[in-house]
Amino acid sequence: MLSQMEHTMETMMCMFHKCAGDKGYLTKEDLRVLTEKQFPGFLENQKGPLAVDKIMKDLNLDLDLDQCRDGKVDFHSFFSLTAGLTTTCNEYFVVYVTWKRKK
Amino acid sequence: MLSQMEHTMETMMCMFHKCAGDKGYLTKEDLRVLTEKQFPGFLENQKGPLAVDKIMKDLNLDLDLDQCRDGKVDFHSFFSLTAGLTTTCNEYFVVYVTWKRKK
Repeated sequence: MLSQMEHTMETMMCMFHKCAGDKGYLTKEDLRVLTEKQFPGFLENQKGPLAVDKIMKDLNLDLDLDQCRDGKVDFHSFFSLTAGLTTTCNEYFVVYVTWKRKK
Repeated sequence: MLSQMEHTMETMMCMFHKCAGDKGYLTKEDLRVLTEKQFPGFLENQKGPLAVDKIMKDLNLDLDLDQCRDGKVDFHSFFSLTAGLTTTCNEYFVVYVTWKRKK
């Protein structure tokens, strides 16, 4: 039986390979579909077709898909996206908890 | 309702803060306990008290806890540990799938 952390690792791998398929990497379109489906909370307040690009740029993910990586997102880059979003969430969480304690 | 990816992010944050408590970081001992509990599959073939140190060193995680970071592991470093383990697992998974296809 998998531990909670092992389960999260398995989920991330499955999520990537389910979307990447046999080609083994995500295209920009794959990433957009996956992001819209899996991170709706981060996108719901964004408007316009460049929302995903803007979020990536804001997070400094170094994912210049069209120029630097031939439009291919490998597992490492996909994990970097998740890392950026989770670290940002964690920073907000810490600020919120600190604020709650002071109340 | 959270998506699968949002759920994995929440799990990682909860796991870290549950172990870190009010101090907001993991000590080396916290990390050892968490690793032994959450990544038993990675440790079961390791022997001796330096197993966790050895895995960290092998994964090039830059986690020289005693010298570089005053023995404190923040959320970012914790995420790096998970990233290292997951990326390694993914590499084995890709090799396995490629081998299976050739059979």
